[in-house]
Amino acid sequence: MIRTKEKLTVVKVGGKIVEDLQSLKQLLSDFSKIEGYKVLVHGGGPLATAVATQLGIESKMVNGRRVTDAEMLKVVTMVYGGLVNKQIVAGLQAIGVNALGLTGADLNYMCSVKRPVTDVDYGYVGDVKQVNDDFLADLIAKGVVPVLAPLTHDKLGNLLNTNADTIAGEAAKALSTHFDLTLIYCFEKKGVLTNENDDESIIHKLTPNLFEKYVTEGIIQGGMIPKLENSFQSLRAGVKEVIITRADLIHTVGGTKIIL
Amino acid sequence: MIRTKEKLTVVKVGGKIVEDLQSLKQLLSDFSKIEGYKVLVHGGGPLATAVATQLGIESKMVNGRRVTDAEMLKVVTMVYGGLVNKQIVAGLQAIGVNALGLTGADLNYMCSVKRPVTDVDYGYVGDVKQVNDDFLADLIAKGVVPVLAPLTHDKLGNLLNTNADTIAGEAAKALSTHFDLTLIYCFEKKGVLTNENDDESIIHKLTPNLFEKYVTEGIIQGGMIPKLENSFQSLRAGVKEVIITRADLIHTVGGTKIIL
Repeated sequence: MIRTKEKLTVVKVGGKIVEDLQSLKQLLSDFSKIEGYKVLVHGGGPLATAVATQLGIESKMVNGRRVTDAEMLKVVTMVYGGLVNKQIVAGLQAIGVNALGLTGADLNYMCSVKRPVTDVDYGYVGDVKQVNDDFLADLIAKGVVPVLAPLTHDKLGNLLNTNADTIAGEAAKALSTHFDLTLIYCFEKKGVLTNENDDESIIHKLTPNLFEKYVTEGIIQGGMIPKLENSFQSLRAGVKEVIITRADLIHTVGGTKIIL
Repeated sequence: MIRTKEKLTVVKVGGKIVEDLQSLKQLLSDFSKIEGYKVLVHGGGPLATAVATQLGIESKMVNGRRVTDAEMLKVVTMVYGGLVNKQIVAGLQAIGVNALGLTGADLNYMCSVKRPVTDVDYGYVGDVKQVNDDFLADLIAKGVVPVLAPLTHDKLGNLLNTNADTIAGEAAKALSTHFDLTLIYCFEKKGVLTNENDDESIIHKLTPNLFEKYVTEGIIQGGMIPKLENSFQSLRAGVKEVIITRADLIHTVGGTKIIL
């Protein structure tokens, strides 16, 4: 007998939206309108940079990723695990969403290993190794809405800074064994565009074949390529659909739907 | 039929122990040795003061309590909800304790109201109004160890700075309906002393009658009086015993046992 899985939507929002209280409030309102079970994954990079600067700590980026030394790890633990995460949780509770803020250390839900030093030493940055989703799936089924901060742990007592897109993808893959899973990545545009100067030139459906065609033609390029490759990988691992859309459209049908 | 309740120990530790990584590690090791179900409640005041100073924010105390304006609320949200709480959670996970860090906003487990302004305006400080312990009790019974930060929320979207002793007392009272509850307050001395210059002059058992006698005789005085009054109040609300002891002795039989 095949049991019908219930719908779960994992939404990832970047750090720009969450640092402004007004845009955050709008986001939480839109997020609360998504039907069915929900998980919110947030970034917090711009705010971490601002707090680090105020503390006299320099932010160092390599290939768009933050180098996280011991001092910067304290900053991101404070900003991602504390300030951003708890403001979101309190904001959701205020509109009747029973949120629970988590880092990967909480309930041991996401373990990682410190990224090996090659030509770059990223410091306390984690590559995800294992997701323990049993507690999470159980809580979600009881109506709890997890709010995931971009921090994991190594089970040796260290927190590790972890890319929020990765957290969203790994959580979605693991939870897809329990739920009929939609993964939404918020983006500054309404979707993946065929013409970056035309905001309405949205690719509504993207399959692996179409993706290859657009890459060959140079229509899809740059940072969007790894993002979409990761999306296809999530789909192959059990996620039902990945949607790339603008934050204010997460509760509507729209954006680019990525399917196999 | 009377069902035997299982034992739960709620331990409250102050901010001095948690700010030093070495003393924190020892504390977590001692805490993990307590048999049965466990909850850890932590402070973080000295670290909040240090971070505030580094950020150029002045800490203002009135009657030993922190005045929490909007900027200070951000600091305590970062330090209590993020840095301290998540370091404890990661540290406990490293020694096999399945910790879950929580503020009162998470799972809506502790609601408060912003303290009314009288002669002092404490700012974003919460007086506890309601404890929703169903999720918490359920998680504890499944082996999860909640780690409670001294922050509550008002259900209107605001986090509120809340005394860690109060959090411990309120959580203990609520959880005593589900568990056979011991509440341990860590203290710099081995217990309540009859002679403050003699660290071994511990009062091993303290009842309301003895307490009144010692207060009348001037043996118990100062800040210890409200602490003990709160302890008796917890006992009257269902907590089985309150113990005041030194942090390194929490896993042993010792300290001052407060009973009705």
